[in-house]
Amino acid sequence: MRVRKKKWAENELLTNSLVLKDAFAYKGNWGALFGNNNPIYLEIGCGKGKFIRETACLNPDINFIGLEKERHVICTAAREAKGSVNNLYFLCSDVKDLEDIFGGREISRIYINFCDPWTNKRKWAKRRLTYAAFLDVYKKLMLEGGEIHFKTDNTKLFEFSLNQFCERDWKLRGITFDLHNSGIEGNIMTEYEQKFSSIGMNIYRLEASSRP
Amino acid sequence: MRVRKKKWAENELLTNSLVLKDAFAYKGNWGALFGNNNPIYLEIGCGKGKFIRETACLNPDINFIGLEKERHVICTAAREAKGSVNNLYFLCSDVKDLEDIFGGREISRIYINFCDPWTNKRKWAKRRLTYAAFLDVYKKLMLEGGEIHFKTDNTKLFEFSLNQFCERDWKLRGITFDLHNSGIEGNIMTEYEQKFSSIGMNIYRLEASSRP
Repeated sequence: MRVRKKKWAENELLTNSLVLKDAFAYKGNWGALFGNNNPIYLEIGCGKGKFIRETACLNPDINFIGLEKERHVICTAAREAKGSVNNLYFLCSDVKDLEDIFGGREISRIYINFCDPWTNKRKWAKRRLTYAAFLDVYKKLMLEGGEIHFKTDNTKLFEFSLNQFCERDWKLRGITFDLHNSGIEGNIMTEYEQKFSSIGMNIYRLEASSRP
Repeated sequence: MRVRKKKWAENELLTNSLVLKDAFAYKGNWGALFGNNNPIYLEIGCGKGKFIRETACLNPDINFIGLEKERHVICTAAREAKGSVNNLYFLCSDVKDLEDIFGGREISRIYINFCDPWTNKRKWAKRRLTYAAFLDVYKKLMLEGGEIHFKTDNTKLFEFSLNQFCERDWKLRGITFDLHNSGIEGNIMTEYEQKFSSIGMNIYRLEASSRP
């Protein structure tokens, strides 16, 4: 994604109360931030935040965290969500920091929506968010029975991801090669998904849960 | 597949020694037919037999059985294989008879290649060879660690099959959405696969093994 720089980005990140200033301050103690012990759902790469904002609105009994490494993108997510939800925070951080941000078994669900496919070179496989080594990290941070919900429009990434999940013996379900014609209800679209499905691209999706 | 009737079919089935006349005579005792205790690989729906004939030629230490319900198709398979292999037999029978043909744990591998997708009506799902109830039968008849190797050009059937395998908790690997550009070596093509891949259709494939 090409990122357009915004003059107001830094000020938004500084002043918006939905933006967490210290990513590493809550490890092992996220419930205290939210003031309850509700399950925590994390979106890795939340982009401009439509998906997690709408999902948070519809699920007030769940705590949501949107992770996004691009400062000039997450600022929009935070600005759009301001005032509309009290069960959602944003973190400008990289997936590589996940183990410093969360303790073991703190997360109940992870959403990965339309992440960078990194499919042009074989050696880039390690950067894909569904690379086996990342799956191992997610498993450590998730409660038993926790789920990953994964969407992409990229055929090669979906094929790769299926194999990675299977290699690490995750249990898969709800696999669809064409989400919008699958009969699956309640799908909340990301900005990217709205744009590309409107021009006829089909969307792949799966749900995965790790075994004990 | 539209089947063209052949005048010589019945005579071929009667006189060709590769065609087993009594499908139910070997249950629990297939080794005696082959004269050894080599693993048994079964192709369900072997069609005109190119795949299983070539696979049998390349693997003399495996016993092969080609199952096909169409008499006017399997007659061609048997005629083509005559004289070239001694580790392959053909059975004109239906998948519904599998439990009368094989005893428990007799089969080491099952090939399902380009079976009828039966995707036009939802109620036809039960006819698909990767329907969960069929998977349960295969599991009963297969040795622990036995594998199903599945190929299709039909996207909806492949999506359906992934979900059925996952629902029944089979372990999957080698999932590809484009077999002929996947780098997977040693693929033996069926007649159907040759024809349709030559006009650019991509081929899906997976390997599945049941858990203990």
